Amino acid sequence: MENFTFYSPTYFAFGNGEENHTGSYIKRFGGSRVLIHYGGGSVVRSGLLDRVKKSLEEEDISYVELGGVKPNPRSGLVYEGIELCRKEHVDFVLAVGGGSTIDSAKAIAAGSVYDGDFWDYYQGKKVEKALPVGTVLTIAAAGSEGSPDSVITKEEGMLKRGATGEGLRPKFSVLNPALTQTLPAYQTAAGITDIMAHLFERYFTNTENVEVTDRLIEGLLLSVIHEAPKVIADPDDYQARANIMWAGMMAHNNSCGVGREQDWGSHDIEHELSAVYDCTHGAGLAMVVPAWMTYNLKHDVNRFVQLAVRVWGCQMDFQNPEVTARAGIRALKNFLRSIGMPLNFGEIGAKEEDIKKMAHTSCYGNGRKGTVGKFVRLGEEDVEKIYRLML
Amino acid sequence: MENFTFYSPTYFAFGNGEENHTGSYIKRFGGSRVLIHYGGGSVVRSGLLDRVKKSLEEEDISYVELGGVKPNPRSGLVYEGIELCRKEHVDFVLAVGGGSTIDSAKAIAAGSVYDGDFWDYYQGKKVEKALPVGTVLTIAAAGSEGSPDSVITKEEGMLKRGATGEGLRPKFSVLNPALTQTLPAYQTAAGITDIMAHLFERYFTNTENVEVTDRLIEGLLLSVIHEAPKVIADPDDYQARANIMWAGMMAHNNSCGVGREQDWGSHDIEHELSAVYDCTHGAGLAMVVPAWMTYNLKHDVNRFVQLAVRVWGCQMDFQNPEVTARAGIRALKNFLRSIGMPLNFGEIGAKEEDIKKMAHTSCYGNGRKGTVGKFVRLGEEDVEKIYRLML
Repeated sequence: MENFTFYSPTYFAFGNGEENHTGSYIKRFGGSRVLIHYGGGSVVRSGLLDRVKKSLEEEDISYVELGGVKPNPRSGLVYEGIELCRKEHVDFVLAVGGGSTIDSAKAIAAGSVYDGDFWDYYQGKKVEKALPVGTVLTIAAAGSEGSPDSVITKEEGMLKRGATGEGLRPKFSVLNPALTQTLPAYQTAAGITDIMAHLFERYFTNTENVEVTDRLIEGLLLSVIHEAPKVIADPDDYQARANIMWAGMMAHNNSCGVGREQDWGSHDIEHELSAVYDCTHGAGLAMVVPAWMTYNLKHDVNRFVQLAVRVWGCQMDFQNPEVTARAGIRALKNFLRSIGMPLNFGEIGAKEEDIKKMAHTSCYGNGRKGTVGKFVRLGEEDVEKIYRLML
Repeated sequence: MENFTFYSPTYFAFGNGEENHTGSYIKRFGGSRVLIHYGGGSVVRSGLLDRVKKSLEEEDISYVELGGVKPNPRSGLVYEGIELCRKEHVDFVLAVGGGSTIDSAKAIAAGSVYDGDFWDYYQGKKVEKALPVGTVLTIAAAGSEGSPDSVITKEEGMLKRGATGEGLRPKFSVLNPALTQTLPAYQTAAGITDIMAHLFERYFTNTENVEVTDRLIEGLLLSVIHEAPKVIADPDDYQARANIMWAGMMAHNNSCGVGREQDWGSHDIEHELSAVYDCTHGAGLAMVVPAWMTYNLKHDVNRFVQLAVRVWGCQMDFQNPEVTARAGIRALKNFLRSIGMPLNFGEIGAKEEDIKKMAHTSCYGNGRKGTVGKFVRLGEEDVEKIYRLML
């Protein structure tokens, strides 16, 4: 285990009806003039936005609104939000939505109190200062509700890039599993896949002696795998959604990732898919992660075996452990397929002829210097071969 | 799963040498005039206290000192600390030691800014305000380093009681596993037992649909059980100590206990043992927990079976699940014995004739109204029978 610091000061309010206390949480963290940021229809249609507004009014908190966030949130709306915050003297940004809305809100919060172009932060500059952010989460997914990270796509060139810094971490997050019940099954499954990918990115490490974080990751995976079929079979299964939602937070607040080198290569490889084809992030990960595993299996067969045995319940082949390792990857694929996720290029309309370019952008975009990942440092040719495994 | 809030804002600095940055953490959280609170010999002898002082001096932070904390910390020293803090205008309390020192420091921090008797807090009054507290941990145990709780023994009548409140939660905690290497094996084993007990208290619940927290608890138990024999065999095994130390934090910051009714009956039953016989808290728990399990097994056999299969690797007896449940309790006992913990009254000098009185105090002390625990609400007679299982 390596030395580390761990800091997760976000206040979580979890459960049915908690959004009705949003105003009191904003007050607790010093907000008085709020930008409510959200996506589109369902937040409005379901009455959620009205309930949130009502809770602000009950605490005498004033607000302005900015809707229209799309999946893979764009820089254009961020610039609009920054202008609005400055004009309206906003002192708190509230995101009502999923990972995209939260990431967009974080960008606005940072950009509003920064003299330069907010995009600087997405080109490697650390975010030191931002308006406080709170969230009312409508999808169990990104973990953005407890993380100091944000991903935005710049329209010019469709560049998808990430920023990080303590300033971006939400002060509070309201997690009501019931709010996720109206999500289409495909989005629910994509969220589940994203949670699992956050765990895999931490699991595949070269750091030795990380038993406690291994076990935490495995435990979270086991619970998500156990609950996922329930929620796909019955979208109104509140309890299954509650378990998945808390797993999503724990998967990404880094309590299970501390003290170990993490990989994040699959995310870099996926980001090109969702930037180029505008596919759902989780769906892209469903394609990338098994391919990434297959390609890197020989780097540390034992780690793949451990995952196969402990998480997928595969029988250990003591004569030939690699057989068990491969059984684990097959189990993952079967699982992803069973919840309706794509595994191949054709399913999201991706094209073989784009592979070379995407492999290049993966390895050289966002300030990278020719490789992605840390478990194995993958170059352009490796990434190309991984994309080819998805054909 | 029930509704809940989760808030764990303590900043953790984890790893070898981190104590040398203590001064900078105090500064980060606004301290300038510090009370350094500690126990006795080893903190001084090992040079740890000097290293901590040096790091404060490097940041131009002044300090006063108060040593002498004993296991099962006493109210007398707390009063002394409160007086010292007021006289010296202390604005930050730093605990250097284990759970007892931290708990004592928390009591001082709360009492210093309270007009009444600090003991009010240990009789049920919620702690709203306290001086900020930081810790440099020397034993992986109580989880007090990240919790809003404190337990103090009042000398008058040897009453051992707990207080709680956000004000008591440390702003930062330095966790250097190497600092625990000088601990005697017995104390190390008691710390391990305490961590496991914190997990069991959360595990045994009547709340349904708690898969994710079940799996987190099981994961932490599995890692502690895996690492414990290593550290007992080789006290200098830094990596094993590191895994246990992080498990100890995660076991008690409540991320694995949210949304479920928790029990805490074993702690109430144990507190009488350590108050009356001054035994180490963890050693007392080693005796109480298996007895508690044996007594309550029939309340929910499936839950004991789940623990036995998932954590202890017991073979499932599908014809007679209770056989598996009992095998799990035996496995726990064997484990505790293997790390040198007591299982019976005689081993800590406890006496049968004290049972009736202890059972009464367990159930009626600290504001309780005749029962302990929630998984099963145990009355005086039940507790008496549990003590008798330890004879």
